Amino acid sequence: MTTASRATRNATSRPGGRSARVRDQVLEAVQAELADTGYDGLTIDGVAARSGVHRTTIYRRWKTVAGLLVDLLEAGVDDTWAPADTGSLEADLVALNREVREALSGDSSVTLAVIAASFRTPEAAEALTRFWDDRYERSAVVVERAITRGEVPGDTAAARVVMAATSPLYHQLVLRRSRMSRAEADQYARDSAAAAIAGLLRH
Amino acid sequence: MTTASRATRNATSRPGGRSARVRDQVLEAVQAELADTGYDGLTIDGVAARSGVHRTTIYRRWKTVAGLLVDLLEAGVDDTWAPADTGSLEADLVALNREVREALSGDSSVTLAVIAASFRTPEAAEALTRFWDDRYERSAVVVERAITRGEVPGDTAAARVVMAATSPLYHQLVLRRSRMSRAEADQYARDSAAAAIAGLLRH
Repeated sequence: MTTASRATRNATSRPGGRSARVRDQVLEAVQAELADTGYDGLTIDGVAARSGVHRTTIYRRWKTVAGLLVDLLEAGVDDTWAPADTGSLEADLVALNREVREALSGDSSVTLAVIAASFRTPEAAEALTRFWDDRYERSAVVVERAITRGEVPGDTAAARVVMAATSPLYHQLVLRRSRMSRAEADQYARDSAAAAIAGLLRH
Repeated sequence: MTTASRATRNATSRPGGRSARVRDQVLEAVQAELADTGYDGLTIDGVAARSGVHRTTIYRRWKTVAGLLVDLLEAGVDDTWAPADTGSLEADLVALNREVREALSGDSSVTLAVIAASFRTPEAAEALTRFWDDRYERSAVVVERAITRGEVPGDTAAARVVMAATSPLYHQLVLRRSRMSRAEADQYARDSAAAAIAGLLRH
């Protein structure tokens, strides 16, 4: 739900002519550069060199490094991401948390670079907020399915369930800059599922 | 637990002669400048002007703006902060979440300025990690008291309870940059207490 690295996946398979292909090439280069150098090392020249797209084309269309980042996040809002559908709330939340943990771990996390940039550039901050709002909205379906299956009460608050599962990962990995094992990430997913199943997360 | 703004409170009432008084004056000025201008506007000259301490003294002792920030966080680790002791787990966690929410809200949040700075300066990031580790360690006492009172099972995982209560606030207020009402912050505290009381947050 948080991997900006999948932002262009759908775009790549979408027809759209030269302009769409140029966008794909450029955004893929932005991701690769972010992973290599972080936001501080991101330059339009570097993106031009890596993408093979001429720098004047990039300047004309994206204007600034912040513009590239905003477009990367907007491509993520356009994509077809959906949470895994495993058949149980607990396993759906475990899958979600594993994905979040992956996205936030490692020195070359594109997501971490984008978060760091969001503290520098208001446009990046706004784009990141829209990106997350979109991802959290899509994630609510794991709770809706659990309601349909009768696993949790009908008035379970989907946003609180998803927040309970995922927010400890963001806090520990991004803000406290500590490690988190996969077992620990799984545990927070299971804690949230158990609370929802026990009827403790109702509106 | 997160207010860098209380970092110097204890220092202020502690005897320690001229050197300690200078530190108090300077760190209080750092907080006021951060609240006014954010990290980007923080300068040693500004801190000198506000504190009345000569800029050469500040350069000699703290060297850089990052050095000032690190010392502000270290003063927080030295202080006497403790979570409220209300007599119940739920009310203790509600009080904690209200404090966290206060610290993270508003345009002049010192805590938000320090978090932003931590994405720019590795020393500030490390100092912030130490500060939070310390605050979370001290917060565990709310769960230990609940165990002693027999409110929750003896093998309740204190860190998971505190994390469940507080991490949604950090995620929503700091990273997603959305608002959170006091009622919502209270709700996350109550959710965590209810899960602990139901025996769902055990080792």
